[in-house]
Amino acid sequence: MIPLQEIEKAAKTLAPHIIKTPLVHSPAFSRMFGAQVYLKLENLQKTGSFKIRGASYRLLSGGGTIGPQGVVAASAGNHAQGVALAARRAGVRATIVMPEWVSITKQEATRAYGGHVVIHGQSIGECLARAEELSRTGMTFIHPFDDVDIMAGQGTVGLEILQDLPDADMILCPVGGGGLISGIASAVKAKRPDLRIIGVQAAVCAAVCFSLAAGHMVEASSATSIADGITVKKPGQQCFDIISRTVENMVAVEEEQIAAAILLLLERKKILAEGAGAAPLAALISGLVVPPNDARVVLVISGGNVDSPLLGRVIRQGLIKKGRVMRIGVQLEDVPGSLSRLLAAVAALKANVLHIHHDRGAGNLPIYMTRVELELETRGPEHVADVIAAMKEKGYTLL
Amino acid sequence: MIPLQEIEKAAKTLAPHIIKTPLVHSPAFSRMFGAQVYLKLENLQKTGSFKIRGASYRLLSGGGTIGPQGVVAASAGNHAQGVALAARRAGVRATIVMPEWVSITKQEATRAYGGHVVIHGQSIGECLARAEELSRTGMTFIHPFDDVDIMAGQGTVGLEILQDLPDADMILCPVGGGGLISGIASAVKAKRPDLRIIGVQAAVCAAVCFSLAAGHMVEASSATSIADGITVKKPGQQCFDIISRTVENMVAVEEEQIAAAILLLLERKKILAEGAGAAPLAALISGLVVPPNDARVVLVISGGNVDSPLLGRVIRQGLIKKGRVMRIGVQLEDVPGSLSRLLAAVAALKANVLHIHHDRGAGNLPIYMTRVELELETRGPEHVADVIAAMKEKGYTLL
Repeated sequence: MIPLQEIEKAAKTLAPHIIKTPLVHSPAFSRMFGAQVYLKLENLQKTGSFKIRGASYRLLSGGGTIGPQGVVAASAGNHAQGVALAARRAGVRATIVMPEWVSITKQEATRAYGGHVVIHGQSIGECLARAEELSRTGMTFIHPFDDVDIMAGQGTVGLEILQDLPDADMILCPVGGGGLISGIASAVKAKRPDLRIIGVQAAVCAAVCFSLAAGHMVEASSATSIADGITVKKPGQQCFDIISRTVENMVAVEEEQIAAAILLLLERKKILAEGAGAAPLAALISGLVVPPNDARVVLVISGGNVDSPLLGRVIRQGLIKKGRVMRIGVQLEDVPGSLSRLLAAVAALKANVLHIHHDRGAGNLPIYMTRVELELETRGPEHVADVIAAMKEKGYTLL
Repeated sequence: MIPLQEIEKAAKTLAPHIIKTPLVHSPAFSRMFGAQVYLKLENLQKTGSFKIRGASYRLLSGGGTIGPQGVVAASAGNHAQGVALAARRAGVRATIVMPEWVSITKQEATRAYGGHVVIHGQSIGECLARAEELSRTGMTFIHPFDDVDIMAGQGTVGLEILQDLPDADMILCPVGGGGLISGIASAVKAKRPDLRIIGVQAAVCAAVCFSLAAGHMVEASSATSIADGITVKKPGQQCFDIISRTVENMVAVEEEQIAAAILLLLERKKILAEGAGAAPLAALISGLVVPPNDARVVLVISGGNVDSPLLGRVIRQGLIKKGRVMRIGVQLEDVPGSLSRLLAAVAALKANVLHIHHDRGAGNLPIYMTRVELELETRGPEHVADVIAAMKEKGYTLL
């Protein structure tokens, strides 16, 4: 465990450098899950995630040991921005190795915080290897999680939760490498040993879950997840030791539940969480965690850095699932006016046309018939049913 | 002006019923606009907007005057949910008249708060007429803004801002009917007469701006805006009187600036604001409001109830503008393998294909040629330029 005094020292050191993020109650989620649900909004943190806490404390507390070459880190995500900004604040140079596929947005964000970006290799593994090479040239390597200062910095999230809600009953925290939960558990268990800590992983890459079951560290295989912030193949050894001793339960959530959680946070609470940040809510949605009646449950929304194209896709799929977007194929006579009559019928039903595809060459239709595929924006499942019924009533054959 | 004591009384009455929403600093916006920018997050409020404040105070303070038939309101938006929830809390029946085009989502949200939904007419005007009819059958009509209790309730936003940031220099507030800004200005000016209040309207429906210029109330013509929460044709007379005496400046922002502000709040601050809630940031983006150097500026993010299809569109257009999605037309020889070679070339450039349209019948091309339209997901403007250059180098004719 990280000593409480160390985490309290981190809190004091970090105070001028970070945002004390709000802990907000959610009446909607409380009703949904029969508990008092609170959200710790680390997505509102500087750089959009909690990573700035650990990185800043590592750099500010280890100032004397960092040479003139500055620091180096490997990351395609939040650690990159956290280290870059922390380094600028500490007045040292930061080199961040990022993989070739990293988005321009993330490169630009890292550069905007003063980071020197090096693009190298296809995987984070290759980036790490390059960062280690650079560390041998005099740069200080900043580990994303398996480091006492990093964990102490992340632990300040736990202190803030207890400050705002001293009688919390349960904390749900996303787990990748394990730095955040180790810090939070160390802080919280020192003050409130009865408070339950539950870790949440993405099922496609649940290394800590596997390791706890095996009783020793097991690596997960590589995997892609919406929750890219927590797809860590090999958690930290020190983190794993702390988790083994402090965390009551670990659960693994499916991709679809994570997507649903992102959408629910956006629609009901008006906040943008990245996949990792939405994982704790996914644990409630999935039913893997059922809090006792009216228990005070804190979800750690660890960050909000979602790439816009991914967010667009999550929203779109959510709309299709909720019947707010429907697709239908209609068989039409291939004569002038038939398409215009079809569209007039759709317009009368007050469904908005998003896409239309008129396929004159569809092979499995009679020669004088054609197929039209429509994507429509609708008001909901009832409207979808109305549209289908009305089309059939008008004599259209739906495919 | 609404007396300060009345607003303080409202704050006391409302305390157990509303969320004291966080005021958060934004380092990113502060850098962008050369000021200290804070966000008052009323999108995190119950029902997703500030409207619950005024509605609750109106119902709780006027309890004795509300008959057994309960209350009635007309709204397609936040007022509907505010009145429904406030009524449930006050133990009275709420009837909400909504227009035919209102989304199922908003109907369901209103019903979820216990409201009895009546669907009637095409416009809010028709809904209002129906609500007034109903009010003659014994229901108490709840006006969305032009009511002293409503304004006093909304004014509690101003008290909270001063509690968290007593030395604020400027508040930017969205203005539709005028209830929110009247309440905030009344509260704030009583305590800090030097604090500047600036109102922001949607340019397509800037009734208060026109009225101030004319020196008397002028109606705006009907208009559609992304900021549907503030497209009010006829502001409140009482609101207008307070605004005339307290508000330093009114500005009107364009649709494109509002869309940009929604996207910026999502991408940089990880919060979802509706158009009205994003309008204050749009005023900074547009340059219509230039705060003095390092002034402490509070943006009132009044609500977050954006319909998902609209949000999807805002994100998509933002991606196109930033070069994260590109469309190109390519002229291809109409022989087997040409499309597959084209797609291999695109894949080598690491652009992701979103849509493809292969148009064999394009009229303006030589008979042996065909046209392919591609929609690609790219990493940014440089990547777009790379794709175009590489395609040309490979001998493709771009259309």
